[in-house]
Amino acid sequence: MRIGLLGGTGPEGKGLALRFAAAGAQVVIGSRLGERAGAAAGECNARLAKPLIRGATNEEMLAESEIVFLAVPFGQAVAALVAYRDCFRSGTILVDVTVPMRFTDGLPAYAQPEAGSGAELVARHVPPGVSVVAAFKEIPAHALAEVETPLDCDALVCGDSREARDAVMAAAGLIPSLRPLDAGPLKMASVIERMTVLAVYLNRRYRRRGARFRVQGI
Amino acid sequence: MRIGLLGGTGPEGKGLALRFAAAGAQVVIGSRLGERAGAAAGECNARLAKPLIRGATNEEMLAESEIVFLAVPFGQAVAALVAYRDCFRSGTILVDVTVPMRFTDGLPAYAQPEAGSGAELVARHVPPGVSVVAAFKEIPAHALAEVETPLDCDALVCGDSREARDAVMAAAGLIPSLRPLDAGPLKMASVIERMTVLAVYLNRRYRRRGARFRVQGI
Repeated sequence: MRIGLLGGTGPEGKGLALRFAAAGAQVVIGSRLGERAGAAAGECNARLAKPLIRGATNEEMLAESEIVFLAVPFGQAVAALVAYRDCFRSGTILVDVTVPMRFTDGLPAYAQPEAGSGAELVARHVPPGVSVVAAFKEIPAHALAEVETPLDCDALVCGDSREARDAVMAAAGLIPSLRPLDAGPLKMASVIERMTVLAVYLNRRYRRRGARFRVQGI
Repeated sequence: MRIGLLGGTGPEGKGLALRFAAAGAQVVIGSRLGERAGAAAGECNARLAKPLIRGATNEEMLAESEIVFLAVPFGQAVAALVAYRDCFRSGTILVDVTVPMRFTDGLPAYAQPEAGSGAELVARHVPPGVSVVAAFKEIPAHALAEVETPLDCDALVCGDSREARDAVMAAAGLIPSLRPLDAGPLKMASVIERMTVLAVYLNRRYRRRGARFRVQGI
């Protein structure tokens, strides 16, 4: 499985790169600048003690990836999709991991886009032939980055294409200790993005950094 | 601890009654009709094989309870609060467990009240001196009712009064295998109520009935 990270030099991108590379996927970190991607890949490889991850420009990464994670901050998501619109291969699955959130009086709050959710906004800006799946939104970068620690949580995956959803669930299932769950159509992202807000709140309240969810009884 | 259930003859009310009675709390199921409450209490006591739960009219229940669970369906919540407005003792903690939800094309969807969440709507209709806490919204009645099965999940508790929130967390903490978590101010109910929608979706998707949440990393 060839996995790419669009704007993958931040904490969420590096966390995903680490987990997927450790799970045996081919991983390319993309960035506007190839050398910046190379540096992030080098940092991840040092943590893995194996040269598993490559860095590339976003254009190069998009030319060769089957599943692309949109790993920029939410505020840059639409601009990134516009900038690289012509570089997407038809059939690419775009996994939106962004969350629209703001802080008011020190408390995290959901910044609901007019589209209903961040994922639905993203879906309005992808080129034809690209399917959008929302996943990994509620799994903190910090928990992803600690590759030695089992995640012991679920990956809530939603999207309007059943095939694309299944492909992302299969990818998530490569990561040991992570259970993918089919969370339905893309609009369910409005629930999952808010769960991230709750996780951020709980992290602050309990002075932790890795709050994440496990669905019991399933 | 004296716990009452306002409109407690439905599945959620009986589930809560069973868990709290099994945990050693004094539990009174309230209903519009005392005999209906008595029948529900008898049913629960038969399950527990001990006469731990009493039935009473809602008026009688409100006169003696410290913590009252609003256990009617969401659509009846405001009407119930209006009907029993004069029966609440000052200092009562009202725990709203209701969730505004509808089904569209067979899929559960959140029916967001104009107040922001069901809990915030409920808070607008309680008499002065009554604090509203949202809790148990995301724990399915079916899972509560299976008293032999450990819940192994969290109870997300939110409310604007720190004291009231702490009291409800202490009550939830009586139930073995249930961990109360402080989920912040009452407006966080807009997240937690949506998590119930996700749980209902997951139950349907995976043909289960007891989907509930555990926060890992806390």
